[in-house]
Amino acid sequence: MSLVIVGSVAFDTVETPLGRREKIVGGSGSYAAVAASFFTRPGLVSVVGQDFPKKVLSLFRLRNIDLEGLKIKKGRTLYWHGRYEKDPNLRTTVKTQLNVYENFRPVLPEKFRQADMVFLSNLDPDSHDFILSQLSSVKLVAMDTIRFWIESKPEALLKAIQKVDILFVNDEECRLIAQEINLVRAGRKLQASGPKIIVVKKGEHGAMLFGKKFVFGVVAHPCEEVIDPTGAGDCFAGAFLGYLDSVGGFTQREIRKAAVYGNVVASLVIEDFGLQKLLEVSELDIISRYKSFKKLSSF
Amino acid sequence: MSLVIVGSVAFDTVETPLGRREKIVGGSGSYAAVAASFFTRPGLVSVVGQDFPKKVLSLFRLRNIDLEGLKIKKGRTLYWHGRYEKDPNLRTTVKTQLNVYENFRPVLPEKFRQADMVFLSNLDPDSHDFILSQLSSVKLVAMDTIRFWIESKPEALLKAIQKVDILFVNDEECRLIAQEINLVRAGRKLQASGPKIIVVKKGEHGAMLFGKKFVFGVVAHPCEEVIDPTGAGDCFAGAFLGYLDSVGGFTQREIRKAAVYGNVVASLVIEDFGLQKLLEVSELDIISRYKSFKKLSSF
Repeated sequence: MSLVIVGSVAFDTVETPLGRREKIVGGSGSYAAVAASFFTRPGLVSVVGQDFPKKVLSLFRLRNIDLEGLKIKKGRTLYWHGRYEKDPNLRTTVKTQLNVYENFRPVLPEKFRQADMVFLSNLDPDSHDFILSQLSSVKLVAMDTIRFWIESKPEALLKAIQKVDILFVNDEECRLIAQEINLVRAGRKLQASGPKIIVVKKGEHGAMLFGKKFVFGVVAHPCEEVIDPTGAGDCFAGAFLGYLDSVGGFTQREIRKAAVYGNVVASLVIEDFGLQKLLEVSELDIISRYKSFKKLSSF
Repeated sequence: MSLVIVGSVAFDTVETPLGRREKIVGGSGSYAAVAASFFTRPGLVSVVGQDFPKKVLSLFRLRNIDLEGLKIKKGRTLYWHGRYEKDPNLRTTVKTQLNVYENFRPVLPEKFRQADMVFLSNLDPDSHDFILSQLSSVKLVAMDTIRFWIESKPEALLKAIQKVDILFVNDEECRLIAQEINLVRAGRKLQASGPKIIVVKKGEHGAMLFGKKFVFGVVAHPCEEVIDPTGAGDCFAGAFLGYLDSVGGFTQREIRKAAVYGNVVASLVIEDFGLQKLLEVSELDIISRYKSFKKLSSF
């Protein structure tokens, strides 16, 4: 077990101008784990209700996702209902029902505790220490967050950020946390506060990485039709970390490549609702899109 | 004479959160010509009033800008007063006085009429035919435009676009002209309407090029402090075309490089008010920033 992902597994109802899907499988943990599973065998720590379909769990296992850390609790699975406008950057949450996720206390199974890498995905920043205390030999701690924690627990969040190696944020969150409009200054400011690397996900504009001694920018895949943007950021992080886990190295060169793989998987997932597209593509499709990124941006 | 630039030379009053400058030299023609002058010897076709300082004209000549097409007319120079908010993408025009630019009829001097390339910068689309009719052996016609023409002369603008080889637009203009929210689809749609290449300038997010058989994306230079965004787009186009003129080739490889040089010069001009920064840097600075772009985006 080298990469452990702690995050939500949920039912999502998604409305976009191109259609609506009821209660499809979602959650940041699902997206990140499926994305990582193209590169490595991630362990997923989460909780679902008894209403969660067994066949989805089988599917996850077939994809080499280790579910020993996934609890099935009496009650209903986390439910989220969101709506996107014509501009896919505009999203409204119609409803969130935490259900069994409400008191989720992430206890790692014994075999997960020697993991090299952990991804804390959108968790309550106050829960980070509890998770990290269970990991005996972790070399890389990564996290991302959501607006909800930035606004409701800003101090706990800043403390949590200081303790991680990699912080994934989108551009809006980056500006918000750093309280700085200029994105480059915001990224550098966050990087100086502790993490080795800040990964700023900019949606249709690609991504930007701020390290201590380098900045790396990558454009997005030119996508003509965003069917469903849900999970793109989670997939970016999952693929990024899955790739790093697979090469076992955290050099600048590998980190740049990891960001491109993050972009690749994120660009695929938005081409259909939910996880649909990722379940259809193969490692070969990933490599082929990676090559098209190379072509797209070479000069 | 191989690159002719037709565009405005103006006095600008610029207000930004970082300061204010009164009546500094601006105008799309000035910015494009100075940017192009790092690579080639552009000819500038424009008009100024008798109030325009002779020493600025001398400076332009020293930079190898051919001013034979610049008329000095009785009256006052075009004046623009703009204000930027904290977010440099938000700009308000406080005042525009067209003055001698009002009835600007771009007559090209004899020696400009054999030019290979022409840049029609923010001109009334109805004036394009008049200019093109004066050029006997032009190989590449480029244009950009502004919201004013998109809204006031949409049909004339679409016709003008059909006749050019390269169209420079920013992302907002691209979406507006194509009437399409998705930028990739908008870019492809415009490209299919006639031009060989659509160059979409995305400010802090870099640029995207749509050719018939390729898409090229380049990120922006990570700029921590935008002092004055005025003229960045004009400089992008000027450097892009100046570079193409200098290599005398319009291959895909050269076009990609041209876009990076466009980015380079645009990233420099915003580091100070007006043209100040460009008057301070040398060709060596341009090359050094080009290299840093390579580093920034390589994987």
